[in-house]
Amino acid sequence: MRNFTFYTPTKIYFGDDAEMHVGEELKKRGAKKVLIHYGSERIRGNGLFDSITAQLDAQGIGYVALGGVQPNPTIQLARKGIELCRAEGVNFLLAVGGGSVIDSTKAIRLGLSLGIDPWEAVTKGIRPENPVPMGTVPTMAAAGSEMSNSCVMTDTESHLKRGCNFDENRPEVAFLNPALTVTTPAYQTAAGITDIMMHSMERYLSNEPATPLTDAVCLGILRSVRDEGALLMKDLTNVELRGEIMWASSIAHNNLTELGRSKRTFTAHRIEHDLSGVHDVTHGAGLAVIFPAWCLAEAPYGAERFYSLMHQLWDAPEADTETGMLESVKQGVENMRAYFRSIGMPTRMGELGIDPSEYEYISGLTTNGDTFRLPSFRGGLTQKDIIEIYKLAQ
Amino acid sequence: MRNFTFYTPTKIYFGDDAEMHVGEELKKRGAKKVLIHYGSERIRGNGLFDSITAQLDAQGIGYVALGGVQPNPTIQLARKGIELCRAEGVNFLLAVGGGSVIDSTKAIRLGLSLGIDPWEAVTKGIRPENPVPMGTVPTMAAAGSEMSNSCVMTDTESHLKRGCNFDENRPEVAFLNPALTVTTPAYQTAAGITDIMMHSMERYLSNEPATPLTDAVCLGILRSVRDEGALLMKDLTNVELRGEIMWASSIAHNNLTELGRSKRTFTAHRIEHDLSGVHDVTHGAGLAVIFPAWCLAEAPYGAERFYSLMHQLWDAPEADTETGMLESVKQGVENMRAYFRSIGMPTRMGELGIDPSEYEYISGLTTNGDTFRLPSFRGGLTQKDIIEIYKLAQ
Repeated sequence: MRNFTFYTPTKIYFGDDAEMHVGEELKKRGAKKVLIHYGSERIRGNGLFDSITAQLDAQGIGYVALGGVQPNPTIQLARKGIELCRAEGVNFLLAVGGGSVIDSTKAIRLGLSLGIDPWEAVTKGIRPENPVPMGTVPTMAAAGSEMSNSCVMTDTESHLKRGCNFDENRPEVAFLNPALTVTTPAYQTAAGITDIMMHSMERYLSNEPATPLTDAVCLGILRSVRDEGALLMKDLTNVELRGEIMWASSIAHNNLTELGRSKRTFTAHRIEHDLSGVHDVTHGAGLAVIFPAWCLAEAPYGAERFYSLMHQLWDAPEADTETGMLESVKQGVENMRAYFRSIGMPTRMGELGIDPSEYEYISGLTTNGDTFRLPSFRGGLTQKDIIEIYKLAQ
Repeated sequence: MRNFTFYTPTKIYFGDDAEMHVGEELKKRGAKKVLIHYGSERIRGNGLFDSITAQLDAQGIGYVALGGVQPNPTIQLARKGIELCRAEGVNFLLAVGGGSVIDSTKAIRLGLSLGIDPWEAVTKGIRPENPVPMGTVPTMAAAGSEMSNSCVMTDTESHLKRGCNFDENRPEVAFLNPALTVTTPAYQTAAGITDIMMHSMERYLSNEPATPLTDAVCLGILRSVRDEGALLMKDLTNVELRGEIMWASSIAHNNLTELGRSKRTFTAHRIEHDLSGVHDVTHGAGLAVIFPAWCLAEAPYGAERFYSLMHQLWDAPEADTETGMLESVKQGVENMRAYFRSIGMPTRMGELGIDPSEYEYISGLTTNGDTFRLPSFRGGLTQKDIIEIYKLAQ
């Protein structure tokens, strides 16, 4: 178990009407003028926006609203949000929506707190000393951004999707009402389930000695998401199951599942980011394609660890030799792909509409024209290695 | 999954030399004068006290020290600590020791922050609005008090052991260095392992619908503590294993293992408290005696839930009828007792030096002369019910 620091100060309200604590909590936290940041105008139709603003009015807290966040949120909109906050004297940020809305709000917070361009903050990983306080009312279960230290943004000009991870990104408070997620369509629900599992599987797969306690917590979460997720796909309006998946999204990505393992690489995430950056692929769907291929490519450099995951989570057969483990991993990867297909996820590049003729260009973004090496089990992945991974997902 | 709030703001430094962050952290947190609260004078001999005071000196932070905390910490010593803090103008509390030292420090914090007698605060559960900040340097893995919302104290005059649970009890920062726990003697190590498991097992056993995600996390922690704990008892100076158990003690008691289950009763804990209050029994050892007996007495009122734990954790045989499950639970309880014996824990009242002639008196403390009903699966436990549980552990 390696040294770690763990700091998760986000106060969680979970359950029915969790969002009805917004007014009292923001008042307690000294909110005078709030930016309500959101995605689609649906929240104005379904009463959520009104119930939040009514609470703010009742507490005598002012607010200004900015909608229009898209999946793979753009740094361009975040810049607009920062200008608006400055003009309006906003002192509290409230994200109402999915992971994209929360990350966009985190980017606004970085720019506002640091007084610099948010893309510089994200790409250079500059930490604010006194971040503007923020809260979240998630309406989707996927990214776990409501409790995470991570902020991932896309620059529509350079087609780059980049992120930064530090504790100053963690929201102060999150209001998790599973009922707000029941309208998530099947495809986005499945992509969310996939993303949640990836946050734990990519943490499990680091090239280090086993960490029994953290591994047990990680596998417990993974098995639960695998099983409850499959049930949810057959019963999308089941609030109880929505709740299980919603809470899983938070604890799968708040670092609990990596403690004692210092070398988290999130390599599949990083390879996927540039697919999303170019093709506006749903993050979870892109991961369902890339992650199994990455496992096949990397398993030879960490047979035991990959086997440990595939055997315990994806019914890969017993094995005790390295050769046996590698054979078993292949079976486990196929079982995992079958699971993803069963919940409606793609597992091949073609299904994402990505043609082999684009491999050179997209992989070049990830390795910055083959000058940057992506960390992985074997050491640094070259552009050629990444193209090989694409091909394993062809 | 029931509604919950979850707030764990304790910043964790874990690993080698974790306590070497004390100076910088306390400075950041505005400490001017620190109370260093501890138990045995050993910490003055082994260099721990000196390394902490050297850091405070280097940061220009003053301090005053109060030692002498005993297992089952007394409200009497806490009162002395409060006087000292007032006289010395202490504005930060640092607990250096085991769970007893941390709880004693929490009681000092309650009295100091509220300006009332700490026993009144603990017994009435009065929450301070602005608790004096506190940190901990644990030297034992057991109670998990370094991250918990719980404070348990003993009044030597009334022989009562009572506790309170609320977020204002959570320390702001904890410095967890597993190497500081390697000198814990075998018996105390085993009692700690038992206490850690109890914090999860008692949470698992609430009379409510299953919560798959929380149950999976809870069982993951329990299996890990069971297995790593058995290894540690054979290799007491293994810092790696000490680390696994130390981190388990924190997350087994920070409420993560109960989320979505609102009816946590901690009934075995409450029955045990008065054994400790009267006989100065080591808490974990008392639990190893009481908990299995409580399971036998209560299983008929929640067969499925007890079976679920005993089958998944203690190899209780498969069963599908209620009668079958109850038979299986009995086997599971015997397996659990065998485990406790294998790590050197008692499982019978006699081993604690408690004579049947005392049952009436001790149980009377728990039910306040049979006027108070202890919450449990069947509803309220009477004094007679508790004596029956003693007898099942005779």
